[in-house]
Amino acid sequence: MTSPTLDILGIGNAIVDVLAPSDEAFLTARGLPKGGMQLIDTTQAEALYAAMPTGVESSGGSAANTCAVAAALGARVGFLGKVAADQLGEVFAHDIRASGVHFPTPPLASGAPTARCLILVTPDGQRTMNTFLGACVTFGEKDVDAAEVARAKVVYLEGYLFDPPEAQAAFYAAARAAHAAGRKVALTLSDPFCVGRHREAFRAFVANEADILFANEAEILALYETSDFETAAAMAAKDVEIAALTRSEHGSVILSGGARHLVAAQPTKVVDTTGAGDAYAAGFLAAWTRDLSLPEAGRWGSIAAAEVISHYGARPQADLKELVA
Amino acid sequence: MTSPTLDILGIGNAIVDVLAPSDEAFLTARGLPKGGMQLIDTTQAEALYAAMPTGVESSGGSAANTCAVAAALGARVGFLGKVAADQLGEVFAHDIRASGVHFPTPPLASGAPTARCLILVTPDGQRTMNTFLGACVTFGEKDVDAAEVARAKVVYLEGYLFDPPEAQAAFYAAARAAHAAGRKVALTLSDPFCVGRHREAFRAFVANEADILFANEAEILALYETSDFETAAAMAAKDVEIAALTRSEHGSVILSGGARHLVAAQPTKVVDTTGAGDAYAAGFLAAWTRDLSLPEAGRWGSIAAAEVISHYGARPQADLKELVA
Repeated sequence: MTSPTLDILGIGNAIVDVLAPSDEAFLTARGLPKGGMQLIDTTQAEALYAAMPTGVESSGGSAANTCAVAAALGARVGFLGKVAADQLGEVFAHDIRASGVHFPTPPLASGAPTARCLILVTPDGQRTMNTFLGACVTFGEKDVDAAEVARAKVVYLEGYLFDPPEAQAAFYAAARAAHAAGRKVALTLSDPFCVGRHREAFRAFVANEADILFANEAEILALYETSDFETAAAMAAKDVEIAALTRSEHGSVILSGGARHLVAAQPTKVVDTTGAGDAYAAGFLAAWTRDLSLPEAGRWGSIAAAEVISHYGARPQADLKELVA
Repeated sequence: MTSPTLDILGIGNAIVDVLAPSDEAFLTARGLPKGGMQLIDTTQAEALYAAMPTGVESSGGSAANTCAVAAALGARVGFLGKVAADQLGEVFAHDIRASGVHFPTPPLASGAPTARCLILVTPDGQRTMNTFLGACVTFGEKDVDAAEVARAKVVYLEGYLFDPPEAQAAFYAAARAAHAAGRKVALTLSDPFCVGRHREAFRAFVANEADILFANEAEILALYETSDFETAAAMAAKDVEIAALTRSEHGSVILSGGARHLVAAQPTKVVDTTGAGDAYAAGFLAAWTRDLSLPEAGRWGSIAAAEVISHYGARPQADLKELVA
């Protein structure tokens, strides 16, 4: 087994975010699920965009955000995901590379445009996401370079990738390549609605392939179809080596090998919760891959999440290395 | 003479900004003129973008920013400017229309892409702008719809439009249409380097066509080739009906019909000076077109400018109507 030359390889949807302020009435009038993510088609995307206020564009995508944050914390990071050969694809590729992340996936030469997520941020800081997957739906097993997976200590998969039809095969290919090389497989559940859409597939992957599981309370309850957090946490602890379960302002619970670690949230002013879970996973994995303890990994996760929710947008603005030091 | 159905019609470059943080060393190493605007070609734009950190995209353009801010203050506003039929062009068109601005110019069907401005913001809040004009270079006399000009109380022209070769004819066409309809012509000098590139053209236009002139200290000194502000101010007062001269934290001086009004700056924390002058002109014209006094117009300008420099980006985030009330 060769020594890993990356700490983390993320695999996920390559998306450009369009953030705009919104009031509750705008969401209600359009039946948008507040705080969640829904998939929209071209027609819906055009209609919603036309109705939205002036936006700000920035690179997003759940696992891609995690990769950018982890790189900012000093981890060696790669990312696999599909943009189109268009202007927004250039923006995504520029930004993730400028974050110091290795990004080898070639753009889709023709067909669907680069994915975008229309994010409405309400005055309480909650974000409601509406995702047009575009070129992401073509991401499949062929895009999982086994050599890239084998290079990294852990491959990190976002649950949102269960939505594009080709991507589940990609997940299994990545997990096989990782385990064949003696590496770990981490998964984030991403969103309770996404878990609801693909529960059986998630359950099988968590039980059979995942070594590390990230989820918030709503997601873990959705996965195990229970309303009791302790029941869900116990089931997760049986399925994976490490379960890191986040509970917003109540911090996180890390379960591993029969042990249970409680980690406090970092107090901060909430401006925009976009990317909170992504940043937690980034902090956790950046610490874990440098062999820090699980409570310390949780602390890095909390600090990264607090930084990201204190401003508009999902990528860090402050010096994260300084914050965790 | 029919009654105007717009307060302000802006004419300018239609640009998408890419903002990124920068240190002084990055500017020095590349010979970028700090605080100013330089034009860059495709090759330079690609090289600079590749070297820049992760950016945030938002609609920009000097006169377009002014239009968005004026609309936020309740003015009835239109804008003429050229985007391409591409993703960034869609972003620009969406944002200006979402601001409530009438934007009738059709996109350029093929050829150059939508213009972008790579803006590096140093820790002192100064912005250094690098503009790739793209589709803007095709904006010309044919794009000036005389009926649109005649609809507005004042046509507002950005000096940056002296750079694209076709645009000077467009300026004169707009001025003729405005004066023929009994309307006023306002001009902002935009940038001392731009004034230096086209001084004779600016001098002629200011003396013969402009009724209202906006400039900061560096720009007015560059126009009249003097190092003395009072000399330049006196020359401006002879050339135009109203000269509104901004002096950063020292506020502004408004000269009109022999009178001189001093307006204080609004105290604020400077995060990013991008759009300060644009916002001042917007506040001024929004107040002036509703027949408020010149000192009150200056106060609106100062308030709008203070809001825009207190955060990243050139478009307003706070409720400007509330701030001026």
